Amino acid sequence: MEGKRIHNFNAGPAALPLPVLEEIREEFLNYKGCGMSVTEISHRSKWFDEIINEAVERAKRLLGLGDDFDVLFIQGGASLQFCMIPMNLALPGKPVDYINTGTWSTKAIKEAKIQGKDVRVVASSEDANFSYIPKEFEIDPDASYLHFTSNNTIKGTQWFQFPEAGDVPLVCDMSSDIMSRPFDPKPFGLIYAGAQKNIGPAGAAMVILRKDMLERVPDGLPTMLKYTTFAEKNSLYNTPPCFVIYVVSLVLKWLEETIGGLEKMEEINKKKASMLYDLIDSSDFYRGTADKDSRSLMNVTFRLPSEELEGKFVQEALDQGLGGLKGHRSVGGCRASIYNAVSLEAVTALADFMKEFERKNG
Amino acid sequence: MEGKRIHNFNAGPAALPLPVLEEIREEFLNYKGCGMSVTEISHRSKWFDEIINEAVERAKRLLGLGDDFDVLFIQGGASLQFCMIPMNLALPGKPVDYINTGTWSTKAIKEAKIQGKDVRVVASSEDANFSYIPKEFEIDPDASYLHFTSNNTIKGTQWFQFPEAGDVPLVCDMSSDIMSRPFDPKPFGLIYAGAQKNIGPAGAAMVILRKDMLERVPDGLPTMLKYTTFAEKNSLYNTPPCFVIYVVSLVLKWLEETIGGLEKMEEINKKKASMLYDLIDSSDFYRGTADKDSRSLMNVTFRLPSEELEGKFVQEALDQGLGGLKGHRSVGGCRASIYNAVSLEAVTALADFMKEFERKNG
Repeated sequence: MEGKRIHNFNAGPAALPLPVLEEIREEFLNYKGCGMSVTEISHRSKWFDEIINEAVERAKRLLGLGDDFDVLFIQGGASLQFCMIPMNLALPGKPVDYINTGTWSTKAIKEAKIQGKDVRVVASSEDANFSYIPKEFEIDPDASYLHFTSNNTIKGTQWFQFPEAGDVPLVCDMSSDIMSRPFDPKPFGLIYAGAQKNIGPAGAAMVILRKDMLERVPDGLPTMLKYTTFAEKNSLYNTPPCFVIYVVSLVLKWLEETIGGLEKMEEINKKKASMLYDLIDSSDFYRGTADKDSRSLMNVTFRLPSEELEGKFVQEALDQGLGGLKGHRSVGGCRASIYNAVSLEAVTALADFMKEFERKNG
Repeated sequence: MEGKRIHNFNAGPAALPLPVLEEIREEFLNYKGCGMSVTEISHRSKWFDEIINEAVERAKRLLGLGDDFDVLFIQGGASLQFCMIPMNLALPGKPVDYINTGTWSTKAIKEAKIQGKDVRVVASSEDANFSYIPKEFEIDPDASYLHFTSNNTIKGTQWFQFPEAGDVPLVCDMSSDIMSRPFDPKPFGLIYAGAQKNIGPAGAAMVILRKDMLERVPDGLPTMLKYTTFAEKNSLYNTPPCFVIYVVSLVLKWLEETIGGLEKMEEINKKKASMLYDLIDSSDFYRGTADKDSRSLMNVTFRLPSEELEGKFVQEALDQGLGGLKGHRSVGGCRASIYNAVSLEAVTALADFMKEFERKNG
């Protein structure tokens, strides 16, 4: 009665690991024998304590975070973080610096400006329609922080070497590539990620905060908009998004125990991306939209010779069980989002389909 | 392998209707044959459009809301609403009025004060430890709005006749009794409810907004803190808490189609509450903590002759499959939360246990 599952290339909400979905279903009516669904247990219960603590501990182990970092869960997605970051972390009288690599950076910049912060855009790739990651720019040691977006889901670009900003803490929107590869967390004051791409379903942002940042939180902010509120109560000041945190804990367990950590995950992710980029590069039919040295391992964006063929491509792919390949509505074209949970098998099926489609229509 | 489910008297997150849980489980790996889990579909897909529109339409039908109301889903729970309400709805130079009936009202008042609003507490039951609902108070026609909490989960009190405030719009935190009974929505400018008590799992507030309130939203607020952002985009400005909205739509379907609407629900809720209050009133062993004319149909709070007996009561109840009966940590004692999804059968089992416990220990 279940029907066949498709290969899911959605940009977010996106594919989740099948073993995680199966585990959720298996225990959905009775979580660990407690007699209730995980959606029915109290957030003050020992069961939920274990869930949230496990999610935090696994995130810390996977990312190699020391005790100087807190891992928080905050509702409102990355979009609420766009406003909480300048509200909490801008230092009085000091500017806030941003690098603009597309839609999401632009929104983050807008929210800092709404609050009247002294916003400096220190680098941007807007001159070439955000098709590359800026390489040469100056960092002013005077800045409160330097904000950047590690991966641009819409344009298909990604940072491979993070900006160096000396003592200026980095603040990064990692919504679409968190947990996809290892990196050194030390230069970061804050990392945030909407859960719905690489680590869970929609409904929470994971916020990784270096504890010295908490000293910046000004008095007089509304309680729910202060990082201190979440840090002091292990994200349990009020009822958290329990189900999302539960799924995140299962996804991180899968990453640690089944995949084997972020080095292994990165290897697989590189293999998946290469398969598609090699195909695109060796073809006159498909054309990548991002500069080669900035191409994302998470979102492979490409065009076909005509919009008509792109429409046909997306439809025929879906007919063959390959979903979510339409580009973002703001740019058109095609996009394959190949986050952690998208298997090598799924990407192989897509590559096979692409070759066949080119043969028939090229 | 499933094990036995218990009767769940948690205060929130709380019991969900079993048929809803079963439906979620049934279609969890493949939502309506689309080949993806409901947690994996795009919030811009036709499937999710149907889900959110159904949730909104059912809420409107159940509550008898006209086209002058919007139904929104906003992350952050009721706690974020405590700050968004004064931020969005306080009129320049005009006070905001609050009635204080306990912990949650107190928090709402605190957030309005943090923002420097001219807060007037026009009535309070703090003089008797919040054991009653205030009856006589003056409403000043000058107020921006009058805020009250329709049901106090901690003290077990509930409003049965809502305050009359003339042209001053009512603003109400209905987190713990929304959809438990019919009422006239006309005097309300805004109603909000954390989903995790009567309508779904944790991770969203339902916000019912009379459209004229949108004219009050001041310029210059952060995008994610403006009601206009959510109203203009049908709660889809950014990725919403998709799973929570999906479960809410199923709970509201159950309310409409299985229970038969709010009149029917209220009848059942009254029957459940009477069963427990009658038992308490006819006993010298159990003692209710709220004034009789203010007693909640949702949260039945009571004490036993000693704290020792209360501990024993909670533990033995759990051993017999009756969970969540401990009072809120701030007040102690016992509490049975009997929201919509707690069946007559569950309450009957509790009443039987209470009689037996009194017989043995009284």
